Amino acid sequence: MIARLLSALSAALCLLLAACASPPLRGTGDLGVVIERARGSVQIVEQSARRSLGRVDGLGDLSHASVVFSRDGRYAYVFGRDGGLSQVDVLSQRLVKRVMQAGNSIGGAISSDGRIVAAQNYQPGGVKLFDADTLELLAEVSTGGSKVVGLADLPGNRFAFSLFEAGEIWLIDASQPRAPQVTRYPNIGRQPYDGLASQDGRHYLAGLYGEDGLALLDTWQPEQGVRRILNGYGRGRAALPVYKMPHLRGWSLAGDYAFLPAIGHHQVLIADRRSWQEVARVPVHGQPVFVMAEPGGRRVWVNFAFPHNDTVQVIDVPSRQIVATLKPGRAILHMEFTARGDAVWLSSRDDNRLTVIDTATLNTIAELDAEQPSGIFFTWRAQRMGM
Amino acid sequence: MIARLLSALSAALCLLLAACASPPLRGTGDLGVVIERARGSVQIVEQSARRSLGRVDGLGDLSHASVVFSRDGRYAYVFGRDGGLSQVDVLSQRLVKRVMQAGNSIGGAISSDGRIVAAQNYQPGGVKLFDADTLELLAEVSTGGSKVVGLADLPGNRFAFSLFEAGEIWLIDASQPRAPQVTRYPNIGRQPYDGLASQDGRHYLAGLYGEDGLALLDTWQPEQGVRRILNGYGRGRAALPVYKMPHLRGWSLAGDYAFLPAIGHHQVLIADRRSWQEVARVPVHGQPVFVMAEPGGRRVWVNFAFPHNDTVQVIDVPSRQIVATLKPGRAILHMEFTARGDAVWLSSRDDNRLTVIDTATLNTIAELDAEQPSGIFFTWRAQRMGM
Repeated sequence: MIARLLSALSAALCLLLAACASPPLRGTGDLGVVIERARGSVQIVEQSARRSLGRVDGLGDLSHASVVFSRDGRYAYVFGRDGGLSQVDVLSQRLVKRVMQAGNSIGGAISSDGRIVAAQNYQPGGVKLFDADTLELLAEVSTGGSKVVGLADLPGNRFAFSLFEAGEIWLIDASQPRAPQVTRYPNIGRQPYDGLASQDGRHYLAGLYGEDGLALLDTWQPEQGVRRILNGYGRGRAALPVYKMPHLRGWSLAGDYAFLPAIGHHQVLIADRRSWQEVARVPVHGQPVFVMAEPGGRRVWVNFAFPHNDTVQVIDVPSRQIVATLKPGRAILHMEFTARGDAVWLSSRDDNRLTVIDTATLNTIAELDAEQPSGIFFTWRAQRMGM
Repeated sequence: MIARLLSALSAALCLLLAACASPPLRGTGDLGVVIERARGSVQIVEQSARRSLGRVDGLGDLSHASVVFSRDGRYAYVFGRDGGLSQVDVLSQRLVKRVMQAGNSIGGAISSDGRIVAAQNYQPGGVKLFDADTLELLAEVSTGGSKVVGLADLPGNRFAFSLFEAGEIWLIDASQPRAPQVTRYPNIGRQPYDGLASQDGRHYLAGLYGEDGLALLDTWQPEQGVRRILNGYGRGRAALPVYKMPHLRGWSLAGDYAFLPAIGHHQVLIADRRSWQEVARVPVHGQPVFVMAEPGGRRVWVNFAFPHNDTVQVIDVPSRQIVATLKPGRAILHMEFTARGDAVWLSSRDDNRLTVIDTATLNTIAELDAEQPSGIFFTWRAQRMGM
């Protein structure tokens, strides 16, 4: 009798212990995820301690992947190349849910109220809207087979994106998420290949693969339609073979200027944010991929396409001079700043390493192991537009 | 023997149960605190659910109070009028620590790396630097008795602030937090009463009570010193009795323009962010206190000093027209937008209520009880500069 009681108590104890072994309370504002592209996993990292907290496996093909966060910072939504959409709980370090939502996908966005996750698809095209809590499919916007690129969130639960084959920009108003309203802007130029929204969500820009320049939509003046800007910029004028098509998201729209990779040139281009006129070109070490301003806007960090992807350069904005050339590792694929810019994290795919650099001193302050890391995404993105 | 064992087991069980009753896992990106000024408490609120999660009492005199957040979003540092600095855990809803750090204080800031909390003091003047984890005093910067106003964080673990009696702006470099380096800018004008930093942390502005205009420091060009701007703006030209001195923090530096309360006038002033020239004045319902742009910058919300503090007006930025006049409650003291602007929370001191408004429809979507609420602070502030 007493033995059975003891046994029952002991069982209860074990259950309780298991329950108590839940993760500790922790704020989410200081966390992030790092894509491990070959393994199909993410590492969950803590910015201040510069350490890895754990790994979540089973996310499929992450050879191209991007991430958005729930408004509370707890869930990372990982969009994989294979069309998988995975919801990862960064606090419990679990894969909560995973849906195969398309045949081929390259990214997504989350609505300004945090309730809708949108996925942009290459195959079979179109955009799907999901409930951010349950990943229930809310609506599907067909693009008639056109690949969707450059999906970005705008204020008021809207999204903007571009249609590669059709050469159009579409806006979705998803304030009724089961019945999204579409506005089409046709004839924006040939083969938009990526797009981005300004940090205030006012302007949407699409890069054109099929011709020079970019297409700009001012969402405050939609009646003016889409206009062409930066005619010196497009793919058409490429002087060198383009080893890696720059992401437009690699742009920085910071302060009075936009900093962008000059496609096919060893140059960073600086344009005025009001006039969209080019104001300067800074010669750099290779073909730039990401051209990212520090949050304070004082310096711009640049990484490069193969064969120069072991190098990162730092441009001083007022003087437009390169003030540092760093060799942080082989195949530097991505950079992510902390929210207020005290540090930058770099992924070195071929050294299986993350490197954390103090932006004030340019010293390496930490190195972390990671399996072929690519994108690094910090939770502050949940609180910004156009991410 | 067995009885003792059972008793010990039972005691262990109770301890474990107590430990298991810890708060649920929760992301912090969606939380906030609301000052209850008369009670000396804060309410902890959840933005998406539009509800109160709890209350933390014992924070002293909060008749004037401001809040900054730890980088992880877990801790709110509350600066009270009585010189108390309180660290509140928003997850466990506990007062973790409280120090009386001055005789009279009006605010503080947190360093760009999140490790240093700085408090600005009226009495006895000066700035104190504290370890953000422990509230241990790291250093004290004496201002020779001058009141310190307008303390703001800048990139690189720097802080800027103004000295009321001395008429100076000081920069602190706190990268060695126990030995902060001070740079002084004297003769900036009479009686600076508040200051603010631009969102990128480049510019620091001080409002002058003793004369017209504002003092501007470009921290990228410190050798140029402080210059005077907006000479039509200062206290000296006030046409009407000033019922409540506007906070400079009530300004919005958004997009190409700055929106600011015209002191002593029933007007909102719009200035060009590059030239600092005034470009327009919008007539409004009363003397503006906070003039706050939506995160998307499309509209600007304005509240007013007594006797017009039952009213909030909404200005459409492109047309510079008032598009809504709302009466959300008596004594509207503060407004706080969600990070991406889908909603705004208003505190109505005299109705003991918080009102949540959908910015797309301008409909009230929630009301919450609160005891004489004043400031509302959401955790996204942890991820921004100049907050």
